[in-house]
Amino acid sequence: MPTIVPTDLLPRDAYRLMISILVPRPIAWVSTLGQDGSLNLAPYSFFNGVGGTPPTIMVAMGQRQGRPKDSLRNIQESGEFVVNIVGADLAHQMNLSSGEYAYDVDEFALAGLQTAPSIDVRPPRVALAPAAMEVKATQFVPVEGTSYTMVLGRILRYHLREGLLRPNGLVDAKLLNPLARLGGDEYALLGDSFEIKRPAA
Amino acid sequence: MPTIVPTDLLPRDAYRLMISILVPRPIAWVSTLGQDGSLNLAPYSFFNGVGGTPPTIMVAMGQRQGRPKDSLRNIQESGEFVVNIVGADLAHQMNLSSGEYAYDVDEFALAGLQTAPSIDVRPPRVALAPAAMEVKATQFVPVEGTSYTMVLGRILRYHLREGLLRPNGLVDAKLLNPLARLGGDEYALLGDSFEIKRPAA
Repeated sequence: MPTIVPTDLLPRDAYRLMISILVPRPIAWVSTLGQDGSLNLAPYSFFNGVGGTPPTIMVAMGQRQGRPKDSLRNIQESGEFVVNIVGADLAHQMNLSSGEYAYDVDEFALAGLQTAPSIDVRPPRVALAPAAMEVKATQFVPVEGTSYTMVLGRILRYHLREGLLRPNGLVDAKLLNPLARLGGDEYALLGDSFEIKRPAA
Repeated sequence: MPTIVPTDLLPRDAYRLMISILVPRPIAWVSTLGQDGSLNLAPYSFFNGVGGTPPTIMVAMGQRQGRPKDSLRNIQESGEFVVNIVGADLAHQMNLSSGEYAYDVDEFALAGLQTAPSIDVRPPRVALAPAAMEVKATQFVPVEGTSYTMVLGRILRYHLREGLLRPNGLVDAKLLNPLARLGGDEYALLGDSFEIKRPAA
């Protein structure tokens, strides 16, 4: 098999290659509030769970022109954020919110999205998102050798669209219908799903 | 919208709810070698990129009966691992490798998988995996309040099956055909994909 050494590539090409292989990535559509009341909404795909009990998630955020992204600044100021799940029907609005706008731009307004109030944190959620998680930041961890910071947080509360929760206590992935991130400018929908029983220990 | 507070659930149910919402998750099929030469292979879905330059990934690993999982022990001992991508045709073998076996069980042998040599690290890769990344561990970060540890690592080298790389320098997701993790015992294939151009800054 052919091999590729990332240090043989230009940094930007090494990054692009990596994100075309780590697929599909779930998307955290993060809403935050700054100390001055600035509302922000932006998508991140370096996102996943990192601990089960209590439920803990991670979003890695980069920099823009040598300064923390607006979401990171706001979470550092407030200690709180909301992770909205991007339903496939919200792809266009999610993309509008991904532009590199000035700090005081409200991406909810820019993308024509309505807010809905959170309960345990101050940042609002995306009203039309099929699911949203209110999160309290618990750790900020610099990724050594890079300009990224991992934001870890504990899930305080879920908002779930009516009908998504199955009787077994799990959300139905097909009904959630999340958009996932691929490489380049590509996105994917969920394909066929199936169950595989874990082997006995 | 109905809301759910994780602390109102049993810990196991709170975990199961979370992983049914954070979907689809990419799968890191991690091969490692212990100090005594023990070979290990196990899948993890708390996995993603966390930094672009240089390409850096994160795999969060839990405990088993109060002790680090075999993969984590081996990475702590050796500082190295390989992340194999689970092609959809390898679902059964991946699942066999997910059982909770004794430390000295070789999951390659157990799942009938052939190894192929790595170049920059000692653990071998899964010969039939469509892509594999040789990784050098760079950080071990405990997830506060949980029993999980985030293993961060820098990608030293990619192995890519012939024909996967497009002329634009990106891997073709449809040809890679990765298996993704949902909640419960469910897995998903990639669905339809499409391109959305980012808005101008």
